[in-house]
Amino acid sequence: MSETCVLVLDADPLPRLERLEGRARIVHADEKSLAERLPEADVLLVWDFLSNAVREAWPGEGARPRWVHTPSAGVDRLLPELAGSDVVLTNARGVFDQPIAEYVAGLVLAMAKDFFGSRELQRQRRWQHRETMRVGGSRAVVVGSGPIGRKIGRTLRGLGVQVDLVGRTQRDGDPEFGRVHGSGALHGLLGEADWVVCVAPLTEESRGMFDAAAFSRMKRSARFINVGRGQHVVEDDLVEALLSHRISGAALDVFMEEPLPVESRLWDVPGLLVSPHMSGDTVGWRNDLAEQFLDNFDRWYAGEPLLNVVDKDLGYVRAD
Amino acid sequence: MSETCVLVLDADPLPRLERLEGRARIVHADEKSLAERLPEADVLLVWDFLSNAVREAWPGEGARPRWVHTPSAGVDRLLPELAGSDVVLTNARGVFDQPIAEYVAGLVLAMAKDFFGSRELQRQRRWQHRETMRVGGSRAVVVGSGPIGRKIGRTLRGLGVQVDLVGRTQRDGDPEFGRVHGSGALHGLLGEADWVVCVAPLTEESRGMFDAAAFSRMKRSARFINVGRGQHVVEDDLVEALLSHRISGAALDVFMEEPLPVESRLWDVPGLLVSPHMSGDTVGWRNDLAEQFLDNFDRWYAGEPLLNVVDKDLGYVRAD
Repeated sequence: MSETCVLVLDADPLPRLERLEGRARIVHADEKSLAERLPEADVLLVWDFLSNAVREAWPGEGARPRWVHTPSAGVDRLLPELAGSDVVLTNARGVFDQPIAEYVAGLVLAMAKDFFGSRELQRQRRWQHRETMRVGGSRAVVVGSGPIGRKIGRTLRGLGVQVDLVGRTQRDGDPEFGRVHGSGALHGLLGEADWVVCVAPLTEESRGMFDAAAFSRMKRSARFINVGRGQHVVEDDLVEALLSHRISGAALDVFMEEPLPVESRLWDVPGLLVSPHMSGDTVGWRNDLAEQFLDNFDRWYAGEPLLNVVDKDLGYVRAD
Repeated sequence: MSETCVLVLDADPLPRLERLEGRARIVHADEKSLAERLPEADVLLVWDFLSNAVREAWPGEGARPRWVHTPSAGVDRLLPELAGSDVVLTNARGVFDQPIAEYVAGLVLAMAKDFFGSRELQRQRRWQHRETMRVGGSRAVVVGSGPIGRKIGRTLRGLGVQVDLVGRTQRDGDPEFGRVHGSGALHGLLGEADWVVCVAPLTEESRGMFDAAAFSRMKRSARFINVGRGQHVVEDDLVEALLSHRISGAALDVFMEEPLPVESRLWDVPGLLVSPHMSGDTVGWRNDLAEQFLDNFDRWYAGEPLLNVVDKDLGYVRAD
């Protein structure tokens, strides 16, 4: 096989690429030069996965790479544009499962035990005993039934939480969760949940699914956690739900606009924790992402089927 | 059996005592009147378990109750004074296991994911992505091998943490943990730990065990959590370890002096989370504690052996 041209969307060098030596020629592009460089590429690695440049350059003029890999779980910055071509799209399925599950479990426990309240009282040098919530025996609805959602569900169950998993369509007989609910069941489930976790892929169906109607179904004591995409949430509706004490708290790791603008009112809504899209990013994550791409490149080079091929119509990797 | 006199150390009424109707007469005492009331009591319920009044009134003049129950896990406010008499001492073994395990797991995750850093950056409206720590695969040393320590160990293991449990004496063949290390092994274990958790009973042996020598054995990246007793820690040594970055962080739920005085320097040591002795206190905990006492009273009244009898020489309930 002749040398493959791997085009990397990112100006900076990335880790571990020495593994490609002798098999691939590496070309870097930034958002500006991407369109011009695409025709020479066999493979596109969207290392800067927060960029919209690929979508904007697609389909464009000339040859297109046959394979596009994004080192993210979500592919919403590439679709629907790539769906119209026969390019093979792969993602980072698997890398973020454990980190995001730990992050969500941490948020659940931190909110149950009111750590943020303790921190604020500490700032004020106030000793104020409170009774906290027992997590064991509480109930969670996890929206998103891919590997990350499943790992979140498994982790919360390990803490004694009853978990309902919600996917696009209902399926029964799941070996771990029994029934995975379809999205139509969501509103019915919300009223029972102490914790509502969003980790769904962003699709036309899921966009804006957490709106005033959804928040109005939740318990007043419920907490909402979003580690999916900012566009899953109607942010103004969430702010209103928090200000009116319709729900008790929320944590957002993702936002409509990222970085969150300094003037956004989300920064200081009472009961809302803001974090900068980092739930999956543990030390060494860039190495893990590079290794995952390189493992798939080995398969590509050997003519074997790629792993983690995204169903471009669904917007995620179809479950086996 | 004639009516039993139950003396309650606490001015306020407590929950669920209607279960005693017809079997016991309930008398309340406060710290001042305790000594005077003790001779008429068959049973002493130390409802105000943060008080030192029992120790101060013991042995005193006249008859003593035959049974003393404290609704706490630790009995350090009653010993060694009660050890010299033949009174039966029982404690709240069991009630705090799950709440404290959740609390510690929450602290581990919150520190790993830097939630407190995110909160502070949020106050400053700063979007600053950081890489966080993967909890799975990290290592913890849990000092205290009673039911709370075991439950903490079990919960952390459920999150993928490797756990070493340290008790007073080494024992092998533990069905869950294999070897439970003896306290002599502690310093050797500290160098491997990402998390050091203190939940030991306070005894002459364990007092001050977390001192400069102990902190000097820990990794610079280690975090220390104390949900045992304030007297386990040489607070000045901990402050020094944090200020000199000898260790990376700590969370104290218990203190030498409680409530922590407003002028204490512990309130604003960087990297130290202060909370007001609440790790075990989930909503409904007072009911749970009352029910536990009442269940034991049923046994007492029926002439059956009591549960959770403390070995007054050891300072805790001996493992089965």
